[in-house]
Amino acid sequence: MILISEVGPRDGLQSTSRIMPLEAKKAWIKAEAEAGVREIEVGSFVPPSLLPQLADTADVVAYAKAIPNLNVVALVPNAKGAARAAEAGVHAMSIPFSMSETHSLKNVRKSHGEMVEEIREVAKIAKAANIHFAVGLSTAFGCTMEGPISDDQIVRLAGAAAEAGGQEFSLSDTTGYANPAQVRRLVRKVKAAIGDEKLTTLHLHNTRGLGLANVVAGLEEGITTFDASLGGIGGCPFAPGASGNIVTEDLVFMLEAMGIDTGIDLPKLLKVREIVAAALPDEPLYGFTPDAGLPLGFAP
Amino acid sequence: MILISEVGPRDGLQSTSRIMPLEAKKAWIKAEAEAGVREIEVGSFVPPSLLPQLADTADVVAYAKAIPNLNVVALVPNAKGAARAAEAGVHAMSIPFSMSETHSLKNVRKSHGEMVEEIREVAKIAKAANIHFAVGLSTAFGCTMEGPISDDQIVRLAGAAAEAGGQEFSLSDTTGYANPAQVRRLVRKVKAAIGDEKLTTLHLHNTRGLGLANVVAGLEEGITTFDASLGGIGGCPFAPGASGNIVTEDLVFMLEAMGIDTGIDLPKLLKVREIVAAALPDEPLYGFTPDAGLPLGFAP
Repeated sequence: MILISEVGPRDGLQSTSRIMPLEAKKAWIKAEAEAGVREIEVGSFVPPSLLPQLADTADVVAYAKAIPNLNVVALVPNAKGAARAAEAGVHAMSIPFSMSETHSLKNVRKSHGEMVEEIREVAKIAKAANIHFAVGLSTAFGCTMEGPISDDQIVRLAGAAAEAGGQEFSLSDTTGYANPAQVRRLVRKVKAAIGDEKLTTLHLHNTRGLGLANVVAGLEEGITTFDASLGGIGGCPFAPGASGNIVTEDLVFMLEAMGIDTGIDLPKLLKVREIVAAALPDEPLYGFTPDAGLPLGFAP
Repeated sequence: MILISEVGPRDGLQSTSRIMPLEAKKAWIKAEAEAGVREIEVGSFVPPSLLPQLADTADVVAYAKAIPNLNVVALVPNAKGAARAAEAGVHAMSIPFSMSETHSLKNVRKSHGEMVEEIREVAKIAKAANIHFAVGLSTAFGCTMEGPISDDQIVRLAGAAAEAGGQEFSLSDTTGYANPAQVRRLVRKVKAAIGDEKLTTLHLHNTRGLGLANVVAGLEEGITTFDASLGGIGGCPFAPGASGNIVTEDLVFMLEAMGIDTGIDLPKLLKVREIVAAALPDEPLYGFTPDAGLPLGFAP
């Protein structure tokens, strides 16, 4: 069984020009849960002035928590956000930790050392509230400002974040630079450094079309959770087909076709696109399987 | 070293509405060879009334043969086409052999038994002319009319075609149904049946976005040649991004990023798109890497 973590309501919506209404977010999350999705990153506890698209995250969390068997995750940028997430009662919180210090300084104005201390504070808040705490090692496969990041630096920073209290880790291909050989190598090294069971997740983008190829490499290295976004929503500006996040529908198709159980009903999942399309009519929805349809005789 | 076999001038152009002029074909082939592509399927010896787009194949072959270090391949549907290919002096000829008998009957009006006899005739012609002879096991991963094709049937038909004189084989995902687990399984079984060195090639489509994921699986099973089409040209009617053949540019990017030598200069290859775009202005060109650009610090 592989866990697919839907990140569209957070990672997707944070980059749309139109703000999705709360009711549409609820309908989307409900429909995905009904299709069998068991984990959704429903929003982000960043200042509403920065991301007005996610200003209603506490309301979304309250709604999503009432759905049975759904793990409700929110992103937190820092201890302040973590306190809000704890108050809202998320099941899990996740902090991005950029492996590129240039990117970290530019994005959250914190050095690597400062970020490790922030992670320590967030870990305390999460522990006190008995909330699962994950660290996303972002720009792990390269940075648009720094270029390649050395494996040694990633291993060292992952170790520091684990020591500071990170319970679970993901490697994030924020920039769409990853390739399957690099995925294998980096997963192995980070697992060796922080413990096999701690690195569970890959967050992959499809910027250069390699998203699902990188999933295959991750599967082989024992990754059990993959982030994905319905319709690849929140894609980067490259057209056509150059989505940001890998497309949930294509990921489910690939895994189920391979005989790997996701617990997700693919025809039901494909129907969820209608909700997102209706709420965000200007936003392109990506994905190959939705256009091509399922193979004749497809029986996962 | 992995061999990328460019099939755009045949598989791509056979489905375009506009006929590419001979001079543009020459410019395309020349530019790809100069970018380091070492094998090109330049056309097809089918009756010109059926595929007017490829009516000039003999002229294209004559031109391509003069390019140093380029393996010039043509598709032949039957013994008649093989005789024309031999006369034109191709370096290699390739016959498609549909694993779905329904598809074979519909497409070339021949049963499996009749196709094996056709292969025997083509093999004789190729041998007499000292031309390399390949068999493409098409619809191997499923058929839009029959659905899944059993592995046993594919193994049996591959064996029959090898006995009839096929020197080299490819597995073709004509319908875009393949998944990485199936690629691994089928490559293993066919290699076991006809000999490891005889199954060299995968011909993959990206219809459901799994093309490069399937390449990763093929690499792991010792496949050394991958067919691909510049700009994914000749895509199926699904839009956007649902190309037919996997995109040469994305394939080269993935392999070179993985540290696998293709002998191809990627920036030069990306420039070749301009020739195809100018000659076929109505035709969409696919590919993620061409839109996203190369990663900062990319040094294959």
